[in-house]
Amino acid sequence: MEIARALAYADAHWDEYVDLYIRAVAQPSVAAQDYGVRACGELLRGYLEDSGVDGARLMETGGQPVVFGELHGPSGAPTVLVYSHYDVQPADPVDAWNTPPFEPTLIDGRLFARGAGDNKGQLMANLLAVRSLVRTGQQPPVHLKFLYDGEEENASPNLPAFVDAHRDLLRADLCYFADGQVHPSNRPVVNFGVRGQLAIEFEARGGETDLHSGHWGEVAPSASWKLVHVLASMKDAQGRILVPGFYDQVRQMTEADRTALDEIPYDEAQVLEIMGAKRVAGPAEFGFFEKTLLRPSMNLSGVQTGYTGPGARSAIPSRAVAKMEMRLVPDQDPDVLFERIVEHVRRVDPDVTVRKLKGLPPSRTALDAPFSDAVITAVANAFGQAPILFPSVGATSADFVFTRTLGMPSFCVPYGPPDENQHSPNESFRLEDLRRGIACMLNVMAEVAVASPVSV
Amino acid sequence: MEIARALAYADAHWDEYVDLYIRAVAQPSVAAQDYGVRACGELLRGYLEDSGVDGARLMETGGQPVVFGELHGPSGAPTVLVYSHYDVQPADPVDAWNTPPFEPTLIDGRLFARGAGDNKGQLMANLLAVRSLVRTGQQPPVHLKFLYDGEEENASPNLPAFVDAHRDLLRADLCYFADGQVHPSNRPVVNFGVRGQLAIEFEARGGETDLHSGHWGEVAPSASWKLVHVLASMKDAQGRILVPGFYDQVRQMTEADRTALDEIPYDEAQVLEIMGAKRVAGPAEFGFFEKTLLRPSMNLSGVQTGYTGPGARSAIPSRAVAKMEMRLVPDQDPDVLFERIVEHVRRVDPDVTVRKLKGLPPSRTALDAPFSDAVITAVANAFGQAPILFPSVGATSADFVFTRTLGMPSFCVPYGPPDENQHSPNESFRLEDLRRGIACMLNVMAEVAVASPVSV
Repeated sequence: MEIARALAYADAHWDEYVDLYIRAVAQPSVAAQDYGVRACGELLRGYLEDSGVDGARLMETGGQPVVFGELHGPSGAPTVLVYSHYDVQPADPVDAWNTPPFEPTLIDGRLFARGAGDNKGQLMANLLAVRSLVRTGQQPPVHLKFLYDGEEENASPNLPAFVDAHRDLLRADLCYFADGQVHPSNRPVVNFGVRGQLAIEFEARGGETDLHSGHWGEVAPSASWKLVHVLASMKDAQGRILVPGFYDQVRQMTEADRTALDEIPYDEAQVLEIMGAKRVAGPAEFGFFEKTLLRPSMNLSGVQTGYTGPGARSAIPSRAVAKMEMRLVPDQDPDVLFERIVEHVRRVDPDVTVRKLKGLPPSRTALDAPFSDAVITAVANAFGQAPILFPSVGATSADFVFTRTLGMPSFCVPYGPPDENQHSPNESFRLEDLRRGIACMLNVMAEVAVASPVSV
Repeated sequence: MEIARALAYADAHWDEYVDLYIRAVAQPSVAAQDYGVRACGELLRGYLEDSGVDGARLMETGGQPVVFGELHGPSGAPTVLVYSHYDVQPADPVDAWNTPPFEPTLIDGRLFARGAGDNKGQLMANLLAVRSLVRTGQQPPVHLKFLYDGEEENASPNLPAFVDAHRDLLRADLCYFADGQVHPSNRPVVNFGVRGQLAIEFEARGGETDLHSGHWGEVAPSASWKLVHVLASMKDAQGRILVPGFYDQVRQMTEADRTALDEIPYDEAQVLEIMGAKRVAGPAEFGFFEKTLLRPSMNLSGVQTGYTGPGARSAIPSRAVAKMEMRLVPDQDPDVLFERIVEHVRRVDPDVTVRKLKGLPPSRTALDAPFSDAVITAVANAFGQAPILFPSVGATSADFVFTRTLGMPSFCVPYGPPDENQHSPNESFRLEDLRRGIACMLNVMAEVAVASPVSV
């Protein structure tokens, strides 16, 4: 496989490539609004087919379809599952855009549009890399399977069941995904995992109705106090989660994890400025990146009870609600933790109930997993410098379907510029990011092809 | 003084008395809406003058005027300050009334109207008692001073300053006030005090803005957790207030207090039904009435932070607010307690601030205070059975202006029926309550006149 020949083809056909990219971005595909998603899937299916991918097709899920296709490499070569998503965030607030969000506008080599970077620019880079190989008569050095999710911005509600139902079809040696932004320092990044999530809500009941506090204070049950005491029983003021067994399944950091965290650039002054805080919160025995990437979190995202308008009212609240949202790390299981929380809350106050809103398991690929070095080398080649390795990111996606359901390592490499404005108005992606993404994907194929499946 | 002769006059002129009463009720006087209050004050000033009271006049405050007048008794007789209020609660929700709230409607001897019972029916009973004496040529056996508040339903914001500025004018040996409802068992009641109140609000600040919980959880400050931990530090789940020094000024119950509490009828099944609860809350070492009448309370009346709508959001709240409202007992001082709370909160988390919304001192007249026996005897005579003695009620009013500012005992005797619907739609008061109130006031004058100022 000759990377240079493929890249030369891309350069020679650059206007055509940019046109394909612009057409993909111009096709709205907002899953949250069911706006153009299937049409965009059809368009990309055609792109895959036109690029030599076999059996490119839409496959139904309970929601938006996934796009799937395959391209064979040499017998015995490893298989790469190339995951992407073709849906985009809503464009709101549309008024805040300088150019119409679904009329891609090229300004100084940068394409402005919803989805320009997240994720269509990055999806297209990987697709056009394969097209460049095929058009130069080269068989990819690995087997390729393409899987484009149509509901990622909706938290991929149907992907787990789809993947579970198509394990044979999707079987591969690794998953590769381009998404997100390079480090603010412009250094490339390889992400090895995501945290899971467990979102719950509480309801505390006091009396049947709100009661006059002058007549019933201290003798009537108070929903507001009940809720406060239950919440305070779950995490202390130093940030330690107090639910019995909550940390039991937290995987120990490896030496490699610790080294990787130590190498992530950290500018505390900048962090404090972004947070608008005087100091970093949480237990002092854990470092910043350990807390944000490799430890679970428990966010109290909302509380409401009684009256908080002007003045004072004299009623004992009969009902109080709260929402809480946790980020989980391997090997925590959202279902197990939910049960522990239910037991804990029942013990503290049976008048407070808990309901699960959603749960997603965490996902982690070891830094020394098979093909890890291949991906790291490929990224270093394409970007011209060694990537920063994130053992995990703090946020959540359905990556567990690859690592847990399909049992393969999964790598995510951001192609976007630090100022991509992902999820925000005036999202953009540079044509040079597209070009570099193509180069990165070509390098990934080349490196994976020659890699020993077990990392050195 | 001949009570029978005065009552005979009242009976002989009953239609005229009822007409005066109805006209007073028909004149709206909603302080919260500045609706007719002064006109009602003028009307009552005329009533006082027409009933022989000297110098009946409106006196200005920072808000609605008070009505004042005097009537002299024999030289050396004690002075009774007859307090009442002539403003009423808003009539809302007007749709819930069966008859128009300001068109008094007499049905089966019961007058339906806003203010029929609270407080115009009770004010008129005391006024007509004096009129009945004067019209029968009898000098009252005590000196009388009348003070009608025009803003009681607004928590008497201007009364403390007015009383403080007119100490000489208002000087008396006791304060007497008719308000509220008799006991549900129909037994009469004498109330010896009210609890004070301290209302405060909290504001917790986290970061400058809400932050993504996947990226900043456990490192960014969380306004929601800060607030929960501050609140939980103020009262435990058993109902014990944890602010250092909060109970320091709580006066010990006397044996007389304990006896009085033991004699208040208590039906736990009914209490639990009203509360909609399975058990009475609060520390078990204190009885129901000790908790509701003679101990302070701390009600968490409202909390708001973050998002509590459908689904889950992944933001760390940057701001959280709460309102809290405490009832105080002698000798707690709202200003002192507020300072203790400020110090406590600052110690727990300096990112949480506290502001005072309002403070009213408690007021208590000892069960064996001067003229206590006189009032109790008068009530027993008028109602035909011994009253239940409440050392305090759980609610709050500006009664401290009499006991603390003017330094006199203060007694409140409810003339209203248990189903008066005070503050609610279809408020009512029976003509027999008016008649009995007149008798009660006549008895109070007679008993106070002969009482030793020091109770036996």
